[in-house]
Amino acid sequence: MSRKIRMGMVGGSLDAFIGGVHRRAAIMDGEIELVCGAFSSDPEKSKETGRGLYLPENRIYNNYEEMILKEKELPEGERMDFVSVVTPNHVHYGPSKMALEHGFHVVCDKPVTLNTAEAEEIAALVEKTGLIFCLTHNYTGYPMVKEAKQMIASGAIGKVRKVIVEYPQGWLSTLVEVTGNKQAAWRTDPAKSGAAGGLGDIGTHAENLAEYITGLKITQLCADLTIFVEGRVLDDDAHVLLRFDNGAKGILQDSQIANGEENDLNIRVYGETGGLQWKQMEPNTLIHKTNQGARIIRTSVGNLSRAAQVHTRVPAGHPEGYFEAFANLYRNFAFHVRARLEGKTVDPVYDFPTAADGLRGMKFIDTVLASNQSEQKWTDFNF
Amino acid sequence: MSRKIRMGMVGGSLDAFIGGVHRRAAIMDGEIELVCGAFSSDPEKSKETGRGLYLPENRIYNNYEEMILKEKELPEGERMDFVSVVTPNHVHYGPSKMALEHGFHVVCDKPVTLNTAEAEEIAALVEKTGLIFCLTHNYTGYPMVKEAKQMIASGAIGKVRKVIVEYPQGWLSTLVEVTGNKQAAWRTDPAKSGAAGGLGDIGTHAENLAEYITGLKITQLCADLTIFVEGRVLDDDAHVLLRFDNGAKGILQDSQIANGEENDLNIRVYGETGGLQWKQMEPNTLIHKTNQGARIIRTSVGNLSRAAQVHTRVPAGHPEGYFEAFANLYRNFAFHVRARLEGKTVDPVYDFPTAADGLRGMKFIDTVLASNQSEQKWTDFNF
Amino acid sequence: MSRKIRMGMVGGSLDAFIGGVHRRAAIMDGEIELVCGAFSSDPEKSKETGRGLYLPENRIYNNYEEMILKEKELPEGERMDFVSVVTPNHVHYGPSKMALEHGFHVVCDKPVTLNTAEAEEIAALVEKTGLIFCLTHNYTGYPMVKEAKQMIASGAIGKVRKVIVEYPQGWLSTLVEVTGNKQAAWRTDPAKSGAAGGLGDIGTHAENLAEYITGLKITQLCADLTIFVEGRVLDDDAHVLLRFDNGAKGILQDSQIANGEENDLNIRVYGETGGLQWKQMEPNTLIHKTNQGARIIRTSVGNLSRAAQVHTRVPAGHPEGYFEAFANLYRNFAFHVRARLEGKTVDPVYDFPTAADGLRGMKFIDTVLASNQSEQKWTDFNF
Amino acid sequence: MSRKIRMGMVGGSLDAFIGGVHRRAAIMDGEIELVCGAFSSDPEKSKETGRGLYLPENRIYNNYEEMILKEKELPEGERMDFVSVVTPNHVHYGPSKMALEHGFHVVCDKPVTLNTAEAEEIAALVEKTGLIFCLTHNYTGYPMVKEAKQMIASGAIGKVRKVIVEYPQGWLSTLVEVTGNKQAAWRTDPAKSGAAGGLGDIGTHAENLAEYITGLKITQLCADLTIFVEGRVLDDDAHVLLRFDNGAKGILQDSQIANGEENDLNIRVYGETGGLQWKQMEPNTLIHKTNQGARIIRTSVGNLSRAAQVHTRVPAGHPEGYFEAFANLYRNFAFHVRARLEGKTVDPVYDFPTAADGLRGMKFIDTVLASNQSEQKWTDFNF
Repeated sequence: MSRKIRMGMVGGSLDAFIGGVHRRAAIMDGEIELVCGAFSSDPEKSKETGRGLYLPENRIYNNYEEMILKEKELPEGERMDFVSVVTPNHVHYGPSKMALEHGFHVVCDKPVTLNTAEAEEIAALVEKTGLIFCLTHNYTGYPMVKEAKQMIASGAIGKVRKVIVEYPQGWLSTLVEVTGNKQAAWRTDPAKSGAAGGLGDIGTHAENLAEYITGLKITQLCADLTIFVEGRVLDDDAHVLLRFDNGAKGILQDSQIANGEENDLNIRVYGETGGLQWKQMEPNTLIHKTNQGARIIRTSVGNLSRAAQVHTRVPAGHPEGYFEAFANLYRNFAFHVRARLEGKTVDPVYDFPTAADGLRGMKFIDTVLASNQSEQKWTDFNF
Repeated sequence: MSRKIRMGMVGGSLDAFIGGVHRRAAIMDGEIELVCGAFSSDPEKSKETGRGLYLPENRIYNNYEEMILKEKELPEGERMDFVSVVTPNHVHYGPSKMALEHGFHVVCDKPVTLNTAEAEEIAALVEKTGLIFCLTHNYTGYPMVKEAKQMIASGAIGKVRKVIVEYPQGWLSTLVEVTGNKQAAWRTDPAKSGAAGGLGDIGTHAENLAEYITGLKITQLCADLTIFVEGRVLDDDAHVLLRFDNGAKGILQDSQIANGEENDLNIRVYGETGGLQWKQMEPNTLIHKTNQGARIIRTSVGNLSRAAQVHTRVPAGHPEGYFEAFANLYRNFAFHVRARLEGKTVDPVYDFPTAADGLRGMKFIDTVLASNQSEQKWTDFNF
Repeated sequence: MSRKIRMGMVGGSLDAFIGGVHRRAAIMDGEIELVCGAFSSDPEKSKETGRGLYLPENRIYNNYEEMILKEKELPEGERMDFVSVVTPNHVHYGPSKMALEHGFHVVCDKPVTLNTAEAEEIAALVEKTGLIFCLTHNYTGYPMVKEAKQMIASGAIGKVRKVIVEYPQGWLSTLVEVTGNKQAAWRTDPAKSGAAGGLGDIGTHAENLAEYITGLKITQLCADLTIFVEGRVLDDDAHVLLRFDNGAKGILQDSQIANGEENDLNIRVYGETGGLQWKQMEPNTLIHKTNQGARIIRTSVGNLSRAAQVHTRVPAGHPEGYFEAFANLYRNFAFHVRARLEGKTVDPVYDFPTAADGLRGMKFIDTVLASNQSEQKWTDFNF
Repeated sequence: MSRKIRMGMVGGSLDAFIGGVHRRAAIMDGEIELVCGAFSSDPEKSKETGRGLYLPENRIYNNYEEMILKEKELPEGERMDFVSVVTPNHVHYGPSKMALEHGFHVVCDKPVTLNTAEAEEIAALVEKTGLIFCLTHNYTGYPMVKEAKQMIASGAIGKVRKVIVEYPQGWLSTLVEVTGNKQAAWRTDPAKSGAAGGLGDIGTHAENLAEYITGLKITQLCADLTIFVEGRVLDDDAHVLLRFDNGAKGILQDSQIANGEENDLNIRVYGETGGLQWKQMEPNTLIHKTNQGARIIRTSVGNLSRAAQVHTRVPAGHPEGYFEAFANLYRNFAFHVRARLEGKTVDPVYDFPTAADGLRGMKFIDTVLASNQSEQKWTDFNF
C-alpha cells in the first residue's frame, strides 16, 4: 500500500489552537496527509481554512455530516481513512459517533465526550465496530514518559508507594473568558466543556499520566475543588488525595489560577528502592533518584528502553517537544491503520490512548465531582 | 555590657547531629559563647563532649538539673544567660521547664515538647515568667523566606489563593531504625518522638513555614497518613489538604520514604496577581512568577526588603546555607537577650519562632492525627 | 496560487540523521510538500527511501543530476519548486550549483560547500540568478534566539562588551569513526567534511549564532585547535579568542570530545547594562540578567518581540524544540518562494540564513585554521 | 592541650566584607577563638571594632606591629597562636612577614602579597621558619571540590583533556569605584590591589581551582585582558587560553563586567571517559557526565570520598555554603597548629592552600600580564 494514511479533520479553523497542533503532529512524520476537512461550524470559515491549507475546494466541507457522507462515497485510497476530531468538547461525540458508524477510524481530542453517557456509547461503538480510536492524551507520547513507564514496570524503583502528579497553569487567574478569549470562553462554559472546568481540561491529563506511568489504578479519592475567580461557574483549581490499587497513595492537583505557571504538568513517583521525576516543560529529562544519588536520564542518551527509543527522532541534545510527543500518537495510530489496511499486526510498543481511557477519564471526573460534594473523606473510584 | 551572651547546652554530645548545628549556629556570629553544658544523659559522654569543646571541667555537668542549679549560683556575667535544649523530643520539656523556673531564657529544638499538654505548660510558663523562648523552626531564618513573607504582606502577589508546601525525605525508606542508626531509632520511637513520626519531625516545619510566609492560619484540614515501612509504628508519610482563614486552599505533604529525596522542604504560594516559589535546598533563590513572566530574586541582589537584608551576611553569589539560617535565629535571640540585659528594645525585624509557635505545632499534630482517624472529610483546626 | 511549495530532496536516505530532520521541518507547517528526491548515491537505496516516503516511482531519481533535468521538464506547479540538499558536505556544492543553474531555489544544509572557493561560486551564482538560497543554520530559528537578537538590537543590554559562545559535544570522545558509525565516518574524513572537523561541523554554528544574535562581526581571532583522539585527522576541539567590530571581546569553544555533553550550544552576551543567556538544550528559556536581578523570558509568555511571536506555534509551557526551530527556516523560505511566485514581498521578520552566511562561515574556518598554524597572537578576519 | 587555638586579626573592621567572613569561618567549628586584633589603620576604628567583638580593651591594638610585639610578650596559651591577615592586598606582606619573624603562624587572605618579589620573600620565610601558613583560596574548601579532585586523581574521568574555568562577576560594570564603594575603590587601585585587577582578585581563584581539582599545572597561556569601563586603570575582564603539563588544553575567563553575574565561579573538566562540572553558587552539587548519562553527586549522599566526608557537617539536603567552605580551611589550619603544639602529625586529608600556592598565583598574574602585552601567541608559565 504505497500511500500515506488519509486524514479528514473536524474543527481546527485557522485561529484555533489545538487544530494546528493536530495537523502538524499528524503530518510531520510523513505517514499521514490531510485530504479533507470540515474546519468550522461556519461554512465560510471552513472554506477559508481549507484553502489556507491548500486543500482542493471539493474536499472542504460545510459540516462534518457532509464530510463523512461525501467521503464515504469516494473510493478507498482516495477517501479519507480516518477522522480527526479537534473541536471543543461538546462536539466530540457527534462526529466521533458518526465516523465510527460509517466505518472510519477516529482520532479525538480529549475529553472523549461531554459526559459519561456519551463516552460509554463511543466506547461501546468502538468495541462493536472494531475500528481504531485514538484519544489524544498526548503527554503519554513523550519518550521519557515511555522510559518511566518501562522502568517502573521492570522494577527499577521497586513497588510504588507514593505518587505526586500536578498540572498547574495560571492563564485563568482572572475572568479572561469575558474578554474575548475564545479558548477561555468555551473551556469555562459547561455547555461546551462539560461538568468540570480545569479538572476536565487538565486534571484528566494528570490522572491519565499517573496511571499510565505507574501501571496502577486509582481506587479511592478525596477531592476539594474550588472556583477562585468570581463569576466563573466551573472549577479552576482541584486538590485531590488518591489511593491506588496496590496500596500506594497519591496527590493530584491541577490549577488554572496558579498565577505565573505555564503548563507545568509534572509527576513524581516513589517506590521502595527509588524515585522518578518528570516535568513536561523539560520533557527530555527524567530524574531517577535513589538514596545513593540521582541519575539524569535523557532522551537518546545511553541504554534506554525500546519504548523510549522508537518514540525518539534525533540524537541526544536536540530537544524534542510538544509536537513530537503529539506526533508519536498520530504516528502510532497510523501504524495501526496501515496494518489494518494491509492485514498485518503492530508491535505493542506503538501504543496510544484509547476510547477506554477516555471513558475512564469521564468517570474520574464524575467521581471527583461527587467527592467534592461529599462530606465523607473517601469516595470509591471503582471502574 | 561588653560581653557575649552565654549559653549552656543540654544534649548535643559529639556524635549527635543537631547539637553541632546548634553550637555552630549559636557561635558563628560572635554574639554568643558556649560556657557550659550537660551534653548527654551519660555523664562520661558529657565530660568527653565538654572537653572536646574545650570547656573547663567545672562547667561540664552530669545532667541538666545539676547544670541549672549550679549555674544559678554563679554571678551574673559568669553564669550562663540561657539554656539551649537540643535533646530528643522527650527531653525538651524537662530542661525547658526547669530553666524557665530558674530564670533562664531558653532556645529549644522543635517540637517544643512531646505532647500538647506539656507544650501548654511551657507556653504558660513563658507567658508567666516573661522569659525569652526561641523554638528553632530554623527554616524561617533564611533571607529569601523573609523576603517572601514581606512580599506577600505587602501585596506583591495579591490575595493568597493556593499554597503547596512539601517536605519530602527518603532516608527512612527502609527500617533503618533497627540497624543501629540512632537518629532513626529515636525519631521513630513514640516514647521519644511523640505520637507522630514524620509529621512531627518535618511536617510541622512545613506547617510553620506555610503560615509564617503567608501570614495565614490553617482552619481546616483533611489528612491521610501512612506507615509504608513494615515494622514501623509511626507515620512515615502524610498527605494533607488544607483550608486557610482567608479562603485560600492548600496541600501539605511530608515524607520520609520519598526515596532519593534529601531534605527538600519547598513551598509555592499563588495569589491573585502572582506566585512565589522557594526551595530549601537552593535557599538563596526565590522565584516570583506572574503571567507576564518570572523574576529570579536572589540573596543580596537588588532591592530586597530590610528583613532579607538584615539576615544576610555576604554579597551576592556567596551562598549562605543551613547554618546561616539557623544562626539567624540564635543571633536574633541573642539581640533580645542582650536588650533585656541592657533594658532596651529590639527592632521587630529580628524575629524568631516562639513557644506559642511550638504549641500551635503540637495542636497541628493532634489535629492531623484526629483527621487521619476520622471518616469525615474536614477536621477543624481552631486555635 | 492554491498549492503547497514543492520540494525535491538530494540525500536523506532513510537511515540518515539530518535528512529526516529536513523532511519533518519542511512539511510540518503545511506549506511545503515533498514531491521527488534523489535520496542516495546508491539508486537502490534511493528507490527504497522514496517508496518509504510514499513517493510515486517516477519521482524517485537515481541521482540529483537526473532529478534536476527531469523535473525541469515538468510543468510549473507539478515540478519541484526548490531543491533541498541534505548530503554530506562534499556533495553540497554539486547539487546546489546545478539547481541554481537550472532555475531552482535551494535549501542547503551547512556548511554551504567543502571549501571557500566553492562557496564563493555558489554565493556568486545566487547573486547572479536572484534565486532564493537558504542555508540551514537552524539554531537561529528558535524564538528565544530571535528575542535575544531583538533585545540587543533595541539596546536592552546596552553596548555589547563580552560574548561567550560554546558548542560542546562528547560523541567523538573515542575513535568511533572506525566502528561503523556512518555519521562519525564522514564527518571526520577531510574528503567529505572539508579541512576542518568539529570547527566546521559545529564551530560554525557557534560563530553564526554569535554574530546573528549580537549583530556584530568578528574582526580578529586567536585559535588553538586540537586533535585529542589518536588516529583522527581533523580537529575535535577548538578554543578561540574573539574580537568584534565594536570593541567587544569573546570566546568561542567547540568540542566533540567533551565527554558527557550532548549538543550543548549556548551563548552568553554581556552589555553595559545587562546580560543574556541562552542554551539550545532548554531553548524556550532566555535569561535576562542585570545587576538588579534576573528575569526568565519564556516562549509565549508576556510581551515578546514580533520576531519571537511569529516563530512560535503554541501557548506558554508547550515546549517547542529542534524540529520547530528548523521548521521556522523552511517556513520562512517557503514564504519567500511563494511571494516570488505570486509577485509579492515578504515581511523581513521572516528571515533565514543565506549563501552569504555560508561563505562567511567558510572564511571563518579558513581564518581559524590559519590562526591555529600561526605563532602570532591575532589573525585578522576581514570579510 | 585543652583550649581553642587563639587568633589575632589584622584588618577586618566592622564594615569590611572579608573580615566578617574570616571571623565566622574561624570560630564556627569551635576550634579557634578570636583573642585580639588590630582591626584598622585607624586606631579609633580598631577600638570600636574590638569592642563590638567583645574583646577586652587590652587586646585591641592600634596597629599590627603593636599587636605582634605585645602578644609576643604574653605567655603561651594566653597569647595568640596565629595571625589572620584580612587587609587589602597591599597590607598582606607587612603583617605576614612580621608575624612569621616573631614566630606566629599565619592565615592570609589572597593574594599573598602585592607582587611577586614580596611573595617570594614570604614563601622563603615560611620555608625557613617552618611556620604554618594558610592562604585562603577558600573555594578549594568545598566538599564537592574535594570530591572532584579525588575522582580525577582516581581516574574516574580518565586522562584530563579539556578544562573550562570561569569566574564572572558583574558588580564593576560601571565606575563604582568613584561612588564611595570602598570594596571597589581599593580593588581597582594598583597601589592597593597590585598590577592586576579582576585577574588578581578572582582570576587567581580560577587558576588555583583548576590546578587543585585537576592536579595539573598550566605550562603555557595566551591572554587577552581588557579594561571595559572608561576611567578604570586595571583589567576588569580576562580571556586566557591554557595549556597544561599533560597535554590538556583549557580556557580561563574572569570578569567583573559580566553584568548580572553574581559570583559565578565554575569549572568543567573533561577527560577521556567522562566529565565533571561544579558551580560555586550551587556548591553542594557536582555533575559527573559520561556519554552514557549523567550522575548528580551531592554533598552527604551515597559513597563519597573521605576527603568530601571530612569537610561536610550535616546530612544530605542541608545546604552548606560559602562560610562552611571557608571554615574548612580554618579548621584544617587549626588542626595543623594544634598538632604542632602537641607534637603530633595531621592526616593529609586536612589540606589547605599555602604560601607556595600564593607565590604561584603571583607568577600566574605576571605571566598573564606579560602574555597580554605580547604579540606572540604563547607565553610560557614555567614555575
